[in-house]
Amino acid sequence: MALPDAFVQRLQQELGHEGLLSDPAETWNYGYDNSRRHAAPELVALPADHDQVAAVVSLCHEFAVPLTARGRGTGTTGASVPINGGLILSTEKMNHVIRIDPANRYMVVEPGVTNQQVQDIAAEHGFFWPPDPTSAAYCSVGGNLAYNSAGPRAIKYGTPRENTFGLRAVTGDGKSIRTGVYTTKGVVGYDLTRLLIGSEGTLAIITEATLKLTPLPESKRTLQVIYRDIDSAARAVSAIMAQPVVPYALEFMDAGAIDMIRDYSEAELPEGAGALLMIEVDGTEHNIQHAVDAIGRAADNDGLLKLTRAETAAEIQALWQTRKALSPALRTIAPKKINEDVVVPVSNIPALINGLSELSARYNVTIVNFGHAGNGNIHVNLLANPDDPDEMQRTHQCLDAVFSLVLDLDGTLSGEHGVGIEKQEFVGREIEPITLELMRRIKRDFDPKGILNPGKMFPTG
Amino acid sequence: MALPDAFVQRLQQELGHEGLLSDPAETWNYGYDNSRRHAAPELVALPADHDQVAAVVSLCHEFAVPLTARGRGTGTTGASVPINGGLILSTEKMNHVIRIDPANRYMVVEPGVTNQQVQDIAAEHGFFWPPDPTSAAYCSVGGNLAYNSAGPRAIKYGTPRENTFGLRAVTGDGKSIRTGVYTTKGVVGYDLTRLLIGSEGTLAIITEATLKLTPLPESKRTLQVIYRDIDSAARAVSAIMAQPVVPYALEFMDAGAIDMIRDYSEAELPEGAGALLMIEVDGTEHNIQHAVDAIGRAADNDGLLKLTRAETAAEIQALWQTRKALSPALRTIAPKKINEDVVVPVSNIPALINGLSELSARYNVTIVNFGHAGNGNIHVNLLANPDDPDEMQRTHQCLDAVFSLVLDLDGTLSGEHGVGIEKQEFVGREIEPITLELMRRIKRDFDPKGILNPGKMFPTG
Repeated sequence: MALPDAFVQRLQQELGHEGLLSDPAETWNYGYDNSRRHAAPELVALPADHDQVAAVVSLCHEFAVPLTARGRGTGTTGASVPINGGLILSTEKMNHVIRIDPANRYMVVEPGVTNQQVQDIAAEHGFFWPPDPTSAAYCSVGGNLAYNSAGPRAIKYGTPRENTFGLRAVTGDGKSIRTGVYTTKGVVGYDLTRLLIGSEGTLAIITEATLKLTPLPESKRTLQVIYRDIDSAARAVSAIMAQPVVPYALEFMDAGAIDMIRDYSEAELPEGAGALLMIEVDGTEHNIQHAVDAIGRAADNDGLLKLTRAETAAEIQALWQTRKALSPALRTIAPKKINEDVVVPVSNIPALINGLSELSARYNVTIVNFGHAGNGNIHVNLLANPDDPDEMQRTHQCLDAVFSLVLDLDGTLSGEHGVGIEKQEFVGREIEPITLELMRRIKRDFDPKGILNPGKMFPTG
Repeated sequence: MALPDAFVQRLQQELGHEGLLSDPAETWNYGYDNSRRHAAPELVALPADHDQVAAVVSLCHEFAVPLTARGRGTGTTGASVPINGGLILSTEKMNHVIRIDPANRYMVVEPGVTNQQVQDIAAEHGFFWPPDPTSAAYCSVGGNLAYNSAGPRAIKYGTPRENTFGLRAVTGDGKSIRTGVYTTKGVVGYDLTRLLIGSEGTLAIITEATLKLTPLPESKRTLQVIYRDIDSAARAVSAIMAQPVVPYALEFMDAGAIDMIRDYSEAELPEGAGALLMIEVDGTEHNIQHAVDAIGRAADNDGLLKLTRAETAAEIQALWQTRKALSPALRTIAPKKINEDVVVPVSNIPALINGLSELSARYNVTIVNFGHAGNGNIHVNLLANPDDPDEMQRTHQCLDAVFSLVLDLDGTLSGEHGVGIEKQEFVGREIEPITLELMRRIKRDFDPKGILNPGKMFPTG
């Protein structure tokens, strides 16, 4: 689309020369995310503060130009890919920690700070922010909020929705709003904070977030437990979740993932390993051994093949090598993987994994599963060769059946990646038409002209 | 208002003889809440299930009849008082636990179950639901959700917003919706669950809630710590909140409250007591003593007068007697008290208490403060004689100044009581006009004719 000259000129006035990119060689890079989809934006705005964001959104509203917010492009669903062209609003210059208030356990940040920056600065004061997606080193807090991205620690400490006090934002008609409070309680007016979190940039552009901090634990331990089969591992997960010591990570790998690591890494894994749990426990120095023992007892059943405890940083790192060997192995074996992050109630994990095994056989598609077992949040990887149209077709039929299986098991299509483009066509199976229509109305309240991330999240057509 | 005959007849058909009260002698009792305000409804509907709720709301929508949902009337803001007449929808017949799923740590309940019922049934399976308002024995879960009512345990375990997976509800145009998931993660579509929680019955009638359960701790201990002055107690609160052992209750009483107890109970309190903390700690048997020691160290400073530890049930009860003596004492001394539940960041508690002391002197109004110090959620009680118009006027001027003080201290007007009628006129000071307008639009999305709890929560005029 060709953007009106008047729009571009006024945008230049607002943002200055360094705040607006228009050279295709520069803007091209802002057109992808980690879904490997790409669409080039006409322009890239690099606002430096809330007021510049408000000016940009106001202009896009006035000229009805599509605006897609972008953090660091680590999302996996195409949510930040500007499929309708227009403007990318990159938050990369808004990368400041505005203030940290240790006495009140919060931190006010701009959306472009990375998750790692937040953790580093919080740690200087003895705190952390619980959400920690795999991409924490690069991903922005704005992106974490857009998809409610959590990572393994959610099992004990919750997702961004449980760890954010309030927001400052600009709605689709360029208006500035504040949501929430600076306190751990507050019930005046509707909860717009949680409404914006997870809304994938379709309601407003977040310009400031007040993050709830948690004290760093004194001590941590890691366990790796290998089971004969998925049912034994799932029984262990249920037993762990039924007792009061909550681990801060409870990660899972199925037989397919273990086999892959066996072939592509030097990790030692016993014969007949059908499932693996990585369990991390935190607490006081005084209690940590007791907590590990409690988890160890809950993890023990007749399907247990091997339990390894790590205490030192080196031992912990060695255990995690197994898990970290997985991604390179996946990439080696299959250049294209469809990586979903479905969720089912924890007790339905065996039914999910067994169902996936049946689908894998039926559609002749390799499926490898790992993920956050404590939340029932399983990363389901369908491996396919993009150069084989027949295989790609079978893979998409299989994916369709995977989502049906998940919904039949009381699950949800996404735990922390969101919908974006990738899952749009399936949203209508999870959310009923009346509820979807309410969401569309809310979208219009915030964004009357529909300029914010158009064509995303809602079912098309 | 006179309700149309056709409306009443169709309502009778839907609800049957036992499902509809129209005798003023019966309906009168449904017109009050714990704010002591009263307005008589024309009719009281007692639906037995979701479908009957949908039928009632549809009829009210068709005939544009005001509908106010009511749990057990323990709210303190007049939110369930039908000031515009019409219909009260009481959830008292919808008092069933639909199912409990211990393996997945959730429980599905109807809105009319009491908080206590939920705790009792959860406890049979080794769990609890964290929200525990003072009125837990009588108040309904629907009411807890309507005001996001939390109680003392919120400091460690959060409010209903952090402890609810999903809802079933009927919107103001009689449509049935489902929100949320049956899992601890989920990010498909907007978060309508948290939007409905705390919306005081203005958006939809909740007919079913999926509550997140937490394992009961193995062990509990209670500490009572008495300080020379408020600053010492506040320093202790900050020190407690800055270390990793989070108490599950951290309750506070100021000098006015202590004096009152001294006069009206037999509790032993040292001379010169300026503030009191009740601290409850939970954890494993193995760690509990260590946790109490950590809290004890954090609570200790040069203003500490007396620290008492309780271990047995009898000792714990004895310590709580002090706190429990407060409400009867308050009632004895002042027949009318204005009980607010403001919140400030924890480090601003001394400034709040000192500011309240100044306001008490300036307006010649007795103010007694206690509450949930760990959340900065202070119950500010203005004691006034309703038969003295001059005193009542001074009290209202003082209340106005209290809210200004709270907002100046980065606080919020309500932590868990909500707005209802009592705080309507002050909401515009906390929430900016643009944000309020967005909330009004959302209200229209859910309730196009404005029949649900009309005239509440939003500023009037």
